Amino acid sequence: MEEKKGLKNRGYSHSDVDERRKAVEKFTGARLENISKYCFDSERASKNIENMIGATQIPLGFAGPVIINGDNAKGEFIIPLATTEGALVASISRGMSVINDGGGVRAKVFLDGMTRAPVFRTDGIDHCVKVMEWIEGNRELLSSIVDTTTNHGKLASIESFPAGRNLFVRFTYGTGDAMGMNMATIATEAVCKKIEEGTGAIMVSVSGNMCSDKKAAAINMIRGRGKSVMAEALIPKEVVESRLHTSTESIVETHIRKNLLGSSLSVTLGANAHAANMIVALYIATGQDPAQVVSGSMTTTMCEDIGGDLYIAVRMPTVEVGTVGGGTRLPSQSEALDMIGCLGEKKALKLAEIVAATVLAGELSTISAQAAGHLGKAHKELGR
Amino acid sequence: MEEKKGLKNRGYSHSDVDERRKAVEKFTGARLENISKYCFDSERASKNIENMIGATQIPLGFAGPVIINGDNAKGEFIIPLATTEGALVASISRGMSVINDGGGVRAKVFLDGMTRAPVFRTDGIDHCVKVMEWIEGNRELLSSIVDTTTNHGKLASIESFPAGRNLFVRFTYGTGDAMGMNMATIATEAVCKKIEEGTGAIMVSVSGNMCSDKKAAAINMIRGRGKSVMAEALIPKEVVESRLHTSTESIVETHIRKNLLGSSLSVTLGANAHAANMIVALYIATGQDPAQVVSGSMTTTMCEDIGGDLYIAVRMPTVEVGTVGGGTRLPSQSEALDMIGCLGEKKALKLAEIVAATVLAGELSTISAQAAGHLGKAHKELGR
Amino acid sequence: MEEKKGLKNRGYSHSDVDERRKAVEKFTGARLENISKYCFDSERASKNIENMIGATQIPLGFAGPVIINGDNAKGEFIIPLATTEGALVASISRGMSVINDGGGVRAKVFLDGMTRAPVFRTDGIDHCVKVMEWIEGNRELLSSIVDTTTNHGKLASIESFPAGRNLFVRFTYGTGDAMGMNMATIATEAVCKKIEEGTGAIMVSVSGNMCSDKKAAAINMIRGRGKSVMAEALIPKEVVESRLHTSTESIVETHIRKNLLGSSLSVTLGANAHAANMIVALYIATGQDPAQVVSGSMTTTMCEDIGGDLYIAVRMPTVEVGTVGGGTRLPSQSEALDMIGCLGEKKALKLAEIVAATVLAGELSTISAQAAGHLGKAHKELGR
Amino acid sequence: MEEKKGLKNRGYSHSDVDERRKAVEKFTGARLENISKYCFDSERASKNIENMIGATQIPLGFAGPVIINGDNAKGEFIIPLATTEGALVASISRGMSVINDGGGVRAKVFLDGMTRAPVFRTDGIDHCVKVMEWIEGNRELLSSIVDTTTNHGKLASIESFPAGRNLFVRFTYGTGDAMGMNMATIATEAVCKKIEEGTGAIMVSVSGNMCSDKKAAAINMIRGRGKSVMAEALIPKEVVESRLHTSTESIVETHIRKNLLGSSLSVTLGANAHAANMIVALYIATGQDPAQVVSGSMTTTMCEDIGGDLYIAVRMPTVEVGTVGGGTRLPSQSEALDMIGCLGEKKALKLAEIVAATVLAGELSTISAQAAGHLGKAHKELGR
Repeated sequence: MEEKKGLKNRGYSHSDVDERRKAVEKFTGARLENISKYCFDSERASKNIENMIGATQIPLGFAGPVIINGDNAKGEFIIPLATTEGALVASISRGMSVINDGGGVRAKVFLDGMTRAPVFRTDGIDHCVKVMEWIEGNRELLSSIVDTTTNHGKLASIESFPAGRNLFVRFTYGTGDAMGMNMATIATEAVCKKIEEGTGAIMVSVSGNMCSDKKAAAINMIRGRGKSVMAEALIPKEVVESRLHTSTESIVETHIRKNLLGSSLSVTLGANAHAANMIVALYIATGQDPAQVVSGSMTTTMCEDIGGDLYIAVRMPTVEVGTVGGGTRLPSQSEALDMIGCLGEKKALKLAEIVAATVLAGELSTISAQAAGHLGKAHKELGR
Repeated sequence: MEEKKGLKNRGYSHSDVDERRKAVEKFTGARLENISKYCFDSERASKNIENMIGATQIPLGFAGPVIINGDNAKGEFIIPLATTEGALVASISRGMSVINDGGGVRAKVFLDGMTRAPVFRTDGIDHCVKVMEWIEGNRELLSSIVDTTTNHGKLASIESFPAGRNLFVRFTYGTGDAMGMNMATIATEAVCKKIEEGTGAIMVSVSGNMCSDKKAAAINMIRGRGKSVMAEALIPKEVVESRLHTSTESIVETHIRKNLLGSSLSVTLGANAHAANMIVALYIATGQDPAQVVSGSMTTTMCEDIGGDLYIAVRMPTVEVGTVGGGTRLPSQSEALDMIGCLGEKKALKLAEIVAATVLAGELSTISAQAAGHLGKAHKELGR
Repeated sequence: MEEKKGLKNRGYSHSDVDERRKAVEKFTGARLENISKYCFDSERASKNIENMIGATQIPLGFAGPVIINGDNAKGEFIIPLATTEGALVASISRGMSVINDGGGVRAKVFLDGMTRAPVFRTDGIDHCVKVMEWIEGNRELLSSIVDTTTNHGKLASIESFPAGRNLFVRFTYGTGDAMGMNMATIATEAVCKKIEEGTGAIMVSVSGNMCSDKKAAAINMIRGRGKSVMAEALIPKEVVESRLHTSTESIVETHIRKNLLGSSLSVTLGANAHAANMIVALYIATGQDPAQVVSGSMTTTMCEDIGGDLYIAVRMPTVEVGTVGGGTRLPSQSEALDMIGCLGEKKALKLAEIVAATVLAGELSTISAQAAGHLGKAHKELGR
Repeated sequence: MEEKKGLKNRGYSHSDVDERRKAVEKFTGARLENISKYCFDSERASKNIENMIGATQIPLGFAGPVIINGDNAKGEFIIPLATTEGALVASISRGMSVINDGGGVRAKVFLDGMTRAPVFRTDGIDHCVKVMEWIEGNRELLSSIVDTTTNHGKLASIESFPAGRNLFVRFTYGTGDAMGMNMATIATEAVCKKIEEGTGAIMVSVSGNMCSDKKAAAINMIRGRGKSVMAEALIPKEVVESRLHTSTESIVETHIRKNLLGSSLSVTLGANAHAANMIVALYIATGQDPAQVVSGSMTTTMCEDIGGDLYIAVRMPTVEVGTVGGGTRLPSQSEALDMIGCLGEKKALKLAEIVAATVLAGELSTISAQAAGHLGKAHKELGR
């Protein structure tokens, strides 16, 4: 049938997209007029999607400017945020404005490495040990194999977790400006082939869920994945009171009862108010993988009263971002990266610092709003 | 300065958006040509974003058709997916095609309720007990207060967690077709005022992180939040072999070593291959809150060998979706909802079943690919 | 051989014990002189152990007196503690003395119920639903079956967790003065037989690890198991300073950075300094099951500065204790129960309150010692 | 008062013990006749307890013999177990007998190191970095300080976790034959003093709960603490059927649904049936710290069907044991260590392997019993 033909079209040209969309319209009875309006070259998206029928448009706003004093991000930044949650951008912007009054954000990446952890089937304990020893003894060989699969990735470290007839091996890679998940997967598959040859162990899956990608895994909180980054700010007492309409004491109390105690009682990985909101809005805007907000959500927020001033910080062990590859090459995403000076080389660490600074501002604003007792009001006025 | 004026514009009209974007261009030096191209009415987005400067375009593809036999979703569906991760749509589509060969997906929502859990400061144990008794004795009063704040929400249940000078109270609401987070927040604030009056306890935060929204919290795995939904399919042996190029035995082995054992060793909430990928792509396409992929990621995937055939199922305790409000009213998102027959009333449960069916297909495909040993290859060919 | 004969002796008399021990001595070459010295009737221990060869003697000390103002435990108590960890008893005793200076401990049990959660194999989602409905519809029948298996246990509630071809059902029982694990197991097996008959589901294991016994399971933190109990005390500023040689501020700071933040970063269930120490010493002394310290360890400790005074509380969701059955009938254990007035009927809640009060004192002392910087010193002087 | 005098006696002689016990009898009204019967020198227990009034006697039985083929434990062992849980010893013994029929247990320690992790207060991110660099640059100095505090401990590695104004530093020590917790605490305090001097950071607590001792902490599952050890056995099909009255298939099914799936759904650290039971019984018998069963309980059990035979293994990342110090020097405990050839030097690794072998046997027996459907029956017959 004609309809089936359209659905089965596998082409990437504009007319292929049109044909598919029309077939979908026919099949579903839905009119997809707005979906048809996209301004990028569908061929250019061929590495980003299959069966393309158009685009989803997410409103893009900005928060800031915010003053960031990072090792890599330095200066005043305007942050692109794609979201449909009313009040979010305004709230983050409020946080940034308050932070600026205190002198801005200090941000720093303290760890960097993308991981992939295959699981091997072995014959048992002794075989596990032999494979671990083989890996230990062939570190350089494995590094050189990695080098054959990628120009940008470097094998950084290897950690083994033996478990009966299973051996999980967690490979960590430097991945340059790429988020690096695919690079790591491809390198790991090559490395595993060699390990299989050398040891007789069988790679059951290139991902054995000790990597762990897009899952809420404690191993990532403890060991880090992608960029591990922190950000902090000091908000003078007067600014807290005049701008946030609450007190340092109230904010710290809210933080302790909610973020620390409440998160512990609900057995939560991380301790924050809504880090995921900031992360996903910035990830979508800049072409990151939005599913990686899962690990980003394991953020630890910290608030302290320092002589009446408010110290606030975030610790984000798992910020998986890149400035090349993936969605970053699409036009609106690429422009958003340009807005924050993250286009081109040596920008991934800068981006991670900007993520942390943005999360910090959003945490400050929401915790303050909850402390001041007007969260619902904010959503009622600005939101849905 | 002129530039500052643009940045500080708070209007929602097209020209307000233009002025802001130009100010941003000036401030950042970036050209935002593609960001300027959006086809929705910026006024219409006024409840979705502030400081709007344009839109982010995410490529939209489709997976399917997939046969779903849900309590609410019945028939053949074509699933809209917004993503920039190459190979993802093709992989999900492959999973669906294979599932169709086995007769399709059975899906079912088994729990439904949105939660908000404020934390109160009390004077200690005895005060906690008094507040709990007061709440118990004033259940109807609290229900009637909820009714004054919303036409669609209903108070469904209340659970208290006393902790010294803290009392966490988890309110669960029926929220109709809305995801319901804001509805729950507003209702809870009203209820809390009454509790404060009646008991002298002080609401420290309307969210005490036992709700828990957009965090990886065990309480949501165990108690559910939003829709709790399951999906399952049976894939005949021959289909597994001919279409997935592997065996039921290999898939089950991969599942056990990776999803069950690997997730346990990495201390992961949930046990799946990449549920977050499917969730976030469908959430973005249909105007859901993509930050809620965090709780969605706590999916449990199950694979069993039934006489050579492959049984596969997913359990998703926390699917926070709605078909009204939020991003659902934006044009491309609304059209995507229309594609799956989820526009209008009484569609939220249907949407939840579709989410689960889509996750099921993606899990099947990726676990099979890992079992067959060609995950990296797939990404090399189709992805970045 | 003679030796084998001794090892294979299955009797319970004193001479059986002697024969076995001598066979063990022969087999191992070890002299077991001290192990031979036990003062209880070995026949009396026939329900507590098999292959008995003697006894282990654990030094027993006391902490206190401590003033407890519980719903069930009222008055001044001297707490029996069996331990080999030097400094522990002294530390707990110090905590109690300080607490007494503040007026004593308020303690309260807020939940009570022992659980057992079998896992059934079903045919899939629809079968799960049918079984759940059957259980729902046969609640009274199941209660009556429970009654045939026990005089003391009562079925209190049932919660179902469907998961594909698995159905986990968590039964909660009132168990009177018994800890109740065996009672719950036996009742659950009987109930499951009926469910199997009525529904065709197959009980794969009477424990499906959602109970969960002697494992560190979030479900027990969130839902409680055994007795859920709290204790609190207020220590006046002057007492903190004169007796604990530190300040309320320092104790609260130590608590926040260590118990709350450190436990979150290390992904710990619960948030305390060393609750397990107090629990296990009191459990061993009073004949409780010491393996259940695992769930007891998921204690949440809370410290607050109230105008310079120190408020300290513990929340223990899973205190699995009883005053009949198990090790409680052995002579030294029975005497220890007698020391705290927990012999005889209606004493289990009292015991739970005493456990919480003891944990509170130990937490206070150790957190204070860490705040004052002299933990190592204490161990050096009193400990090994 | 006389009574008070007795309670306040701080001596360690037999008559001091008597005086105290009599004072306790007076105070409580309880007769403590059996508690008075202990056969060790109370002076000898002076480093194990304060306020001693006697002893608790725990019935001691044996399981085995079991054939162990460890790196350190080699031969046939009879395992001392102190417990009051009827059926436990018999069950473990059954497991051992079955394992022997398959050739015995292979056991191996794969990691060894005791940890202590203080938390420092810093001025923020930059100060954290400076402290981390100072530590990095003064590694040798810190090692030499450790050496001044202990003859047996050696600083093995240091890992830092910066978090805003907090710096957690996890020190790992080799501790020879001692469990090493006190050694680690004392060494860490000394090291911290030097770090404070060198950097201006303030040690808030010598334990910042990233150590983590006697708490259910994921960091110990992932990084290990004390001895990390594995054990495995292969049980021929015929043995499974004739001795365990079930099939390999049923055991594996029980294992998957219960240990893997059930533990995941209940959000449990580790995945086992009842590892804590074996650990605590062996710990009590041999003078280990029974509170450390908490971390031991995070055991992962694994069962596989290998051509009809049953492969079973345990992975125990956190076995905190020693053969000197603590309770090991008490007479009955010392004799129990002698039973398994663990008295004297270089025996701690051997003990850890024996722990794992014992856990393996208990896991095998209980999982089999649950698979065969007769758990409750076993407890009814042998237990309370």
